[in-house]
Amino acid sequence: MLAVVKTSSAPGADRIDVPEPVITRPDQVKIQVLATSICGTDYHIYQWDSWSAGRVKPPRIMGHEFAGRVVEVGSEVQSLKPGDYVSGESHQVCGRCPECLRNQYHVCANTRILGVDVDGCFAKYAVVPERSAWRNDENIPPHLACIQDPLGNAVHATMAHSIAGSDVAVLGCGPIGIFAVAVAQAAGASRVFATDTSPYRLELARKLGATETFNPLEQNVETALAQLTGGQGVDVALEMSGAPSAIQQSLRITRPGGSVSLMGIPAGPVSINLAEDLIFRGITVHGIVGRRLYETWHTMRALLASGRLNVEPVITHQLPISEYQHGMELMRDGLCGKVVFDMN
Amino acid sequence: MLAVVKTSSAPGADRIDVPEPVITRPDQVKIQVLATSICGTDYHIYQWDSWSAGRVKPPRIMGHEFAGRVVEVGSEVQSLKPGDYVSGESHQVCGRCPECLRNQYHVCANTRILGVDVDGCFAKYAVVPERSAWRNDENIPPHLACIQDPLGNAVHATMAHSIAGSDVAVLGCGPIGIFAVAVAQAAGASRVFATDTSPYRLELARKLGATETFNPLEQNVETALAQLTGGQGVDVALEMSGAPSAIQQSLRITRPGGSVSLMGIPAGPVSINLAEDLIFRGITVHGIVGRRLYETWHTMRALLASGRLNVEPVITHQLPISEYQHGMELMRDGLCGKVVFDMN
Amino acid sequence: MLAVVKTSSAPGADRIDVPEPVITRPDQVKIQVLATSICGTDYHIYQWDSWSAGRVKPPRIMGHEFAGRVVEVGSEVQSLKPGDYVSGESHQVCGRCPECLRNQYHVCANTRILGVDVDGCFAKYAVVPERSAWRNDENIPPHLACIQDPLGNAVHATMAHSIAGSDVAVLGCGPIGIFAVAVAQAAGASRVFATDTSPYRLELARKLGATETFNPLEQNVETALAQLTGGQGVDVALEMSGAPSAIQQSLRITRPGGSVSLMGIPAGPVSINLAEDLIFRGITVHGIVGRRLYETWHTMRALLASGRLNVEPVITHQLPISEYQHGMELMRDGLCGKVVFDMN
Amino acid sequence: MLAVVKTSSAPGADRIDVPEPVITRPDQVKIQVLATSICGTDYHIYQWDSWSAGRVKPPRIMGHEFAGRVVEVGSEVQSLKPGDYVSGESHQVCGRCPECLRNQYHVCANTRILGVDVDGCFAKYAVVPERSAWRNDENIPPHLACIQDPLGNAVHATMAHSIAGSDVAVLGCGPIGIFAVAVAQAAGASRVFATDTSPYRLELARKLGATETFNPLEQNVETALAQLTGGQGVDVALEMSGAPSAIQQSLRITRPGGSVSLMGIPAGPVSINLAEDLIFRGITVHGIVGRRLYETWHTMRALLASGRLNVEPVITHQLPISEYQHGMELMRDGLCGKVVFDMN
Repeated sequence: MLAVVKTSSAPGADRIDVPEPVITRPDQVKIQVLATSICGTDYHIYQWDSWSAGRVKPPRIMGHEFAGRVVEVGSEVQSLKPGDYVSGESHQVCGRCPECLRNQYHVCANTRILGVDVDGCFAKYAVVPERSAWRNDENIPPHLACIQDPLGNAVHATMAHSIAGSDVAVLGCGPIGIFAVAVAQAAGASRVFATDTSPYRLELARKLGATETFNPLEQNVETALAQLTGGQGVDVALEMSGAPSAIQQSLRITRPGGSVSLMGIPAGPVSINLAEDLIFRGITVHGIVGRRLYETWHTMRALLASGRLNVEPVITHQLPISEYQHGMELMRDGLCGKVVFDMN
Repeated sequence: MLAVVKTSSAPGADRIDVPEPVITRPDQVKIQVLATSICGTDYHIYQWDSWSAGRVKPPRIMGHEFAGRVVEVGSEVQSLKPGDYVSGESHQVCGRCPECLRNQYHVCANTRILGVDVDGCFAKYAVVPERSAWRNDENIPPHLACIQDPLGNAVHATMAHSIAGSDVAVLGCGPIGIFAVAVAQAAGASRVFATDTSPYRLELARKLGATETFNPLEQNVETALAQLTGGQGVDVALEMSGAPSAIQQSLRITRPGGSVSLMGIPAGPVSINLAEDLIFRGITVHGIVGRRLYETWHTMRALLASGRLNVEPVITHQLPISEYQHGMELMRDGLCGKVVFDMN
Repeated sequence: MLAVVKTSSAPGADRIDVPEPVITRPDQVKIQVLATSICGTDYHIYQWDSWSAGRVKPPRIMGHEFAGRVVEVGSEVQSLKPGDYVSGESHQVCGRCPECLRNQYHVCANTRILGVDVDGCFAKYAVVPERSAWRNDENIPPHLACIQDPLGNAVHATMAHSIAGSDVAVLGCGPIGIFAVAVAQAAGASRVFATDTSPYRLELARKLGATETFNPLEQNVETALAQLTGGQGVDVALEMSGAPSAIQQSLRITRPGGSVSLMGIPAGPVSINLAEDLIFRGITVHGIVGRRLYETWHTMRALLASGRLNVEPVITHQLPISEYQHGMELMRDGLCGKVVFDMN
Repeated sequence: MLAVVKTSSAPGADRIDVPEPVITRPDQVKIQVLATSICGTDYHIYQWDSWSAGRVKPPRIMGHEFAGRVVEVGSEVQSLKPGDYVSGESHQVCGRCPECLRNQYHVCANTRILGVDVDGCFAKYAVVPERSAWRNDENIPPHLACIQDPLGNAVHATMAHSIAGSDVAVLGCGPIGIFAVAVAQAAGASRVFATDTSPYRLELARKLGATETFNPLEQNVETALAQLTGGQGVDVALEMSGAPSAIQQSLRITRPGGSVSLMGIPAGPVSINLAEDLIFRGITVHGIVGRRLYETWHTMRALLASGRLNVEPVITHQLPISEYQHGMELMRDGLCGKVVFDMN
């Protein structure tokens, strides 16, 4: 089969012919991939940044966001059968470590990531554990179903808080930030404020329902939000940028007693005024990684299937997989929301 | 001033001239009432049912749902001033009993209810403690602001659960049930199912956003909901009718591990199959009374001010207070949502 | 091997020679049983009551509470190896139904119970899924490790509440009730009150740390608890008897805003004064079944290993398995706490 | 009356004769102080550090931790009467700001602190709002009842987490840290580990129930705790020192999915490796300030009255108030737990 493969420890990737993956354990399922999408992580691997160089062992089929149909199941698989329509939880967890046994699978120490630690889904077929396949509602088309992995990040970050009737700020409007805007709106936020330095992304945030957007290059976000909230601050801040200044800001724009999700990954340590910005103000901070298995997916399926969560506008590009290099260039230039590949 | 007064221990009420209420304690505020609405409790007092006969001591100015403007404040009042636009929390709590000191004011043992235990708001003026006045957003008009007391019941009952992405059933579509439909939709429910025996009320529930409605006189609600939820049951049931059959049903239509609010008041003890319907299914039941002071009001103000919660269609009748008897007749016949009185 | 087997659809059981169980699926483990204990369910099956007659299909090896050592593992087992010291979660769940995927395994619709639906542990060996084996701390001896299944019921029922600094009442002092007394004490309860009609069991409850005990045949429990709590009621009630009068009482002895676990199984529907006892008092009721997989087990292991939870006195009888009939007679007469069998 | 007064903007304090405080508002109570204790804040004011110089306006009667008896009540006071035995919540909150109306009084923006912003309790009498007086159990003697303000800090920091069966680490064993050791033990912690650089304080921590103590000057705390927890880390860390190194450590010693309270106040910004230490590990951080009004006090009263929480050994010195300077010297030298003054 054809697959987009990281063939060597260098920038780039090749679409080459490789053997079809086979089921080697009784709890695995083989899936025909219908649609995939590009995550920032894929682009980092494509670029071959220092993180990728330390983690990925070529050759490796890339990609971890997908929707597809089961074509074969292992002997012990009970919940899935050929023809089932599924997406993949990219974090393949062990199920038996102390964290998994506490149902905190999202911090399983033995997590292996599809397309990073094991062969991924930028291919005609992929093999994953039954445990990592999530049955989709048939009404959700593949180009939407494939983006549930990053959408789930946004759902996890948002659902860590009580949202109905709350003022929410989203800092950083990359795809996951924009998703968070939509999720907060779907979950009953009173107002959703969004910040980014890119006018393109702020425009996307407004399309997805941001009540008001702010460019920190052009205005003082803290002052603006203080005015809009009667000097209080927002109830909930969702930090999606990883920028140190935004992380610091996420605490200061939040009202006393409010709560913050930190999901964006800063490049290094961040200096924080804990006394003034967190302790004296009684703020709670949630470190957010991955998705809750499978509470996050339940919520996401319900919000998508009900039509309440419409993330269609985030999908700015749909390309055939043969144009994977063009997709990576779009990621490089930042002029895109989600780039989805049709795998047919 | 003119006021609608329960003048004697008998059915009916009179609109008569009474002295204006005066501030007698330093923490009180005097309010000019702009709009009021009829609660089922008011109608019971009007009818003079056995509960009323045991609780209300005539003469008593009736009414507890209102919006108005502060016209005078006691010497120790700090948070309000003449001109402020407020509504009233009808449950006047003591603030110092063990429950109040745990911030569970809604079950304060010393609660006195406006228009029941103390003179109410079907009058030009009312005097209430500062603690019982809630500042409204100026954008919420009086005919909406006055119904926040019963709307708050619905917010309290609904917000006891995790709603975003959940399937919710509301049993009983009196005004509070219909409000609950709207609140669940505003808070991100995946689907909201509603039941009632009155086609008029089911029509109102659909107007307020019910995904589907069911008349238990015409169909088997349990079977219908099981089909719609893949045999699972809903995530959350909100029992608003008080009918024993609906209370029993509220448990059986809820999925294992789900949760139920009981708010409707049954006339007597109810027989429940606890083993099969509650224990083996790991269900949680919340007894709901009043409103959380003031978490419920915060959420409600935010949902109303953002436009996300539109309960305008529930207000089926707006009458001058002089037509209070017509209002009570509408309540008697059940062909109404909320009946609001203009007090000017 | 020798096993205690329900050989026919009639009262009694036989200790007979049967084939050793074998691993038939790659995720199973074979365990040499070291100690087992009798649950009320075992006694019901022994008696052959109507529930048993409808559920159990003889021949069936009885027993579901055990501690033992792994002697063999299936080809896909990764977290256990021969020699590991384990106990069993008797509720074997599917792991893939909607409830399991929400981590609410305790209400899995596909649960099969060891010794009820599949062959049990009153035998030299048992085979269970890896998922159903829980690694014990080596410091917990087998006669204590084997009773974790019912102890876990008590932990689950108790940990549904905030216990530290709370007044707790346990209604019904069978083994699980007595365990709940000990768990509540270990978890920081301010006072633990216990009720039962058996002086023998009340004595056991006092040994396990009950602050005060009450026999409803001899005194008015509601009056006594009201006096002890300044008229307030307890913060938390744990209903372990299943008696309708105790279930009704569990609500009335709980303070407004407090919470109740219902775990005892009533024989039929129970009439409850929902308005006065639950709704107006804002009480929350948790239906409790099984154990949280595996949060309950984590908590239990930690409490046992730290020495904080000493349930040794509940084990009133330790017998060789050859005296299983004597054990059943002790259960019949109610003059026992837990009866443990040595399997060697 | 005699009172310890900060008489001028300079180090030191004087015990001088001042007029008795009088009730000036109808919601105030006058209290005869029986016992007080020294907080670090009092010592800072005594020293006249930069924070004090910016906040305190001499002359100011010092002190905010006390127990005493009500001797007079204002005209609107309903819950207290002369003779009642009370302690004081030192954070006098407004009760009407958005945070107070959400029952998050501990972050009230209008908080005034006794002995800092208003005259305090190092005197024969003090006047406080009814709202700030907490009725003590008569069985708790004054020298224990007076330390509930700092003990409440520890209760608040600890009760932000699920403690029963958890491994807890306390970083920093000043009085509040030592209290936290005792509170965690009372609340059912599996093990409580404590760290400090002072052998004197570690000895106190062991007296109060620390399972094991660590001096970071002598050993690698992270390595030691990793070994003790099977490489996992503790479930809960309570940071009480304010030292940047300990704050960083509090995250790294906590298991993935665990939670941290930050209460110690760092002198400046702290650099944190958010990606590795918080985000990827899914940790939750609670900023802790003050006490929950009055949930914290309820829990504390119950734990003290039940005898479960014995903090007597933390009170290393009991002096007559005339020796206040000696008390301050003890604070300076760090060779003390709590220093309590007898006010008679």
